[in-house]
Amino acid sequence: MTGYAGISPVFHGGDLGLASRTFPQACLPWVDLSTGINPVSYPIPRLAPAVWARLPDADALDALEKTAASAYRAAAGTQVVTGPGSQALIQRIPWLLPPGRVAVVGPTYGGHAPAWTAAGHSVTVVSSLAQCRDAAVVVVTNPNNPDGRSLSAATLAEAEARLGPQGLLVIDEAFADVMPDISFADRLAEHPHALILRSFGKFFGLAGVRLGFALTADAALAARLRDQLGAWPVSGAAIAIGQAALADADWQAAMRLELAAACGRLDDWLARAGLAVIGGTPLFRFVADDAAERWYRRLGKRGIIVRCFPEEPRHLRFGLPGPEPEWERLAAALDSCA
Amino acid sequence: MTGYAGISPVFHGGDLGLASRTFPQACLPWVDLSTGINPVSYPIPRLAPAVWARLPDADALDALEKTAASAYRAAAGTQVVTGPGSQALIQRIPWLLPPGRVAVVGPTYGGHAPAWTAAGHSVTVVSSLAQCRDAAVVVVTNPNNPDGRSLSAATLAEAEARLGPQGLLVIDEAFADVMPDISFADRLAEHPHALILRSFGKFFGLAGVRLGFALTADAALAARLRDQLGAWPVSGAAIAIGQAALADADWQAAMRLELAAACGRLDDWLARAGLAVIGGTPLFRFVADDAAERWYRRLGKRGIIVRCFPEEPRHLRFGLPGPEPEWERLAAALDSCA
Repeated sequence: MTGYAGISPVFHGGDLGLASRTFPQACLPWVDLSTGINPVSYPIPRLAPAVWARLPDADALDALEKTAASAYRAAAGTQVVTGPGSQALIQRIPWLLPPGRVAVVGPTYGGHAPAWTAAGHSVTVVSSLAQCRDAAVVVVTNPNNPDGRSLSAATLAEAEARLGPQGLLVIDEAFADVMPDISFADRLAEHPHALILRSFGKFFGLAGVRLGFALTADAALAARLRDQLGAWPVSGAAIAIGQAALADADWQAAMRLELAAACGRLDDWLARAGLAVIGGTPLFRFVADDAAERWYRRLGKRGIIVRCFPEEPRHLRFGLPGPEPEWERLAAALDSCA
Repeated sequence: MTGYAGISPVFHGGDLGLASRTFPQACLPWVDLSTGINPVSYPIPRLAPAVWARLPDADALDALEKTAASAYRAAAGTQVVTGPGSQALIQRIPWLLPPGRVAVVGPTYGGHAPAWTAAGHSVTVVSSLAQCRDAAVVVVTNPNNPDGRSLSAATLAEAEARLGPQGLLVIDEAFADVMPDISFADRLAEHPHALILRSFGKFFGLAGVRLGFALTADAALAARLRDQLGAWPVSGAAIAIGQAALADADWQAAMRLELAAACGRLDDWLARAGLAVIGGTPLFRFVADDAAERWYRRLGKRGIIVRCFPEEPRHLRFGLPGPEPEWERLAAALDSCA
């Protein structure tokens, strides 16, 4: 079989049910490299019974937002709004603005364009910020997923300055934890038409917690987003775990080094297999190869699932293996397929 | 001081930060009777590390929805849609319908009317279903919060039958777990313009988990609600805990008996203090008294926080105390204030 015939559309990584239906004969357990989620999770702190029993506490949520502002090095005066994952924030924000022209710089994370379309906006996917001049809303992912392309703060500031009075620049920084210097968070105070999205689950390896943040200096916009999300936007456990992890600067610093090393190791192995890494971040590598579809199927049969892009069949995205046996299975599969 | 001067507007129970600011000298710890949440929580099962680390699993979510359909005795063909708490569902549903006339049968839970207003609908609070004839959407809470008033299935079926082709009858069954025979869930197949909301946190005493369900036989409406909520509507922990609790029919049956006994005990004590219980459910009692505001303040100073209604100053709502020392503190406070 050639091409991705027989493979259901892939909207997100991490769906092992779909993987099992695609590769029913695969060696299990799965080595899931289909996401950009850190395979090394922040250790779950002891959770008090009240975290489960009681309604999430307003003061604890407030404290979490202060900790997030500090961890993300947000400018003073930045509003931080907590949501149940950055995908949930991506789906709420389009309803805060009157329907208008939206430019999404892509290809990028697949959740952006449909969220704006669902709220009645007219969406165009463009290939660069330079093509966004007519749009009321511009959406960029920085660093970009899946190719890792990054934009400088100066470029983003220019894009924000070009927006009209009702304009909004959405900067999805879902993967910026591993490249903290890329973040626009310290500039938000001077750029009130910018809004940053941060994902908790990817860097901290806790995607099941459902926690994310929106940051903006536009207090009215932040208040409307808060209203959309309601009184208890996230679980008590998400507040407690987020508070512990975002306050733990030592773990974060050590993890950045660990991920850089893991990513170097993965690059070496991919190169040895003849696969060209053309981009990425320390949490995932973006590969171009004429035989990408064949690689996808060969790895899948060996129980190693990577992210494919049926609409861009020369590309694959590799997340990082976790425990050493996963690395060994990847090494063996790369050797035997090369 | 008379009346509720000096008390911030109370939108929901369970806000101990607000209680502490209102009664800074209160005996601590708080005995929080301000919610209708079961003080006896379902025991949290052991959670696998993957529950936190991985994106919530689509197949596990599907299984949870099947378990919920069975626990709620839903008619065959009913769609079950999972959301992060029934409040989150209450806030999403209004965006699924074109702006129109909405009648909320009240007084009731304070989350309904603002959610419809925020989505551009024209909302009237009416005192009975009979006054809803011109509305495209009718919202009832059954049993009602805070007064416990209940509506028969026949009455609800009539109300649904009167709706226009674009109409919707929203039945908030947040407290129906304690009165399962009241539920309309087994009739949904014949009433496609009805949608039921169920709350997980109240009966199972796990409000921090953030889990709730919408049930309807209207598959298109359910699909649009699912789209609004996105691919990962609740945390991995919520799926695992909800699955265990909703499948545990023995715990549920025993808890219904336990709550009935606790509620009888509370009624006796309130009666001895001269407080008239005029309604409620086994999870909360609704009290009318000319000195309600004085009771609220006296109990508050003793560290016992109940739900007051500044707009209906003769009424109070008492939730159930939890461990025996809480019952003893309530008894002492009722004795000394009577």
